[in-house]
Amino acid sequence: MYKLYFAPGAASFSVHLALIEMAVPFELVRVDLQSGEQKSSEYLRLNPNGVVPTLVHDGQAMSESAALLLWLAEREGKLAPPMGSPARAPYLQWMLYLANTLQPAFRQWFYPHEAAGEAAIDGAKAAAQVKVEVVFDRLADHLSANGPYLCGADLTVADLHAFMLMRWSRNMPKPATSWPVLAAFVAGLKARPSFKALYEAEGLTEWA
Amino acid sequence: MYKLYFAPGAASFSVHLALIEMAVPFELVRVDLQSGEQKSSEYLRLNPNGVVPTLVHDGQAMSESAALLLWLAEREGKLAPPMGSPARAPYLQWMLYLANTLQPAFRQWFYPHEAAGEAAIDGAKAAAQVKVEVVFDRLADHLSANGPYLCGADLTVADLHAFMLMRWSRNMPKPATSWPVLAAFVAGLKARPSFKALYEAEGLTEWA
Repeated sequence: MYKLYFAPGAASFSVHLALIEMAVPFELVRVDLQSGEQKSSEYLRLNPNGVVPTLVHDGQAMSESAALLLWLAEREGKLAPPMGSPARAPYLQWMLYLANTLQPAFRQWFYPHEAAGEAAIDGAKAAAQVKVEVVFDRLADHLSANGPYLCGADLTVADLHAFMLMRWSRNMPKPATSWPVLAAFVAGLKARPSFKALYEAEGLTEWA
Repeated sequence: MYKLYFAPGAASFSVHLALIEMAVPFELVRVDLQSGEQKSSEYLRLNPNGVVPTLVHDGQAMSESAALLLWLAEREGKLAPPMGSPARAPYLQWMLYLANTLQPAFRQWFYPHEAAGEAAIDGAKAAAQVKVEVVFDRLADHLSANGPYLCGADLTVADLHAFMLMRWSRNMPKPATSWPVLAAFVAGLKARPSFKALYEAEGLTEWA
């Protein structure tokens, strides 16, 4: 049994979606970010970085959404190319690229004071926007040539992670859905029963 | 046979070290970053991001240093906890944490204008320094409690990646070796034959 500590629409989204898609039993625990529950001593014992998600399994607490996706996929034998197959390399490459390029760019967009201080918020947001759009360009090029999914014909957890990150752009000047191929990708994932189940469980309404 | 496109001391360092530690046959191709060879049309065909490393195997070109380490470890069955073992989760967690927290912080330290523009370079460097030191604090705490390596008793590619990133701090106000436990970690990895072999092959001298 997995236990997922989540906050609605946060970085736990892709892990939650993966658990639903994998049809494995899990329990949800909501972390109230508004009241700062993620910085409570109880939560920090599970996750020293004080962020969501945390996944607990067999008494072991784990964090880092992309790592959790890789781990769940290899543990359950689902939503990833088989070990030893040629698609493993691009699969890992996309997961890491999303995690170390797109995800930090969103962090900078949502917390621009972290980049270079309060005085540079406008510059930080502008730079973050450029970084996000560069990645969306690359994703669009790749999916146009090699889609419908990041690893080709089959859905993987990399797609779930990309989908979550695309959702985060919904209020940006140029959201992911401005690229027709990314809009089609998003529409495909929204049409899956897992999306409706997640929205209900997390109480989400925006971007439905 | 693997072919590694590298630049001395760059993000190819940990992948190069892994190839040596795994004792697998490989060929090195030096990319001249000074002359901008990484932005040549020939290189961009291999690596659309125009960065090192690129690893070519069986005609397939791959990038993202952390992804290459994960891929090599699973392909060669070396320098990683076995699939299904309890150490897989922390192994993946540390790899992703290094890749999406520490590595982007160094990017900001070395290319501070990217964070919020030319006017905010000082603020960006100061923020990057804080981010790097926060991670070194966490690594030091973790290694003190659970070392000598990130996953405990056995060396993994996560250690090679951490070692490379610690090297990048050598000219910062507070380099990794300011933390005694990180200094011991660094000394242990420098004492391995792989370190000497890499330094000779890449023509490195600093931080020997």
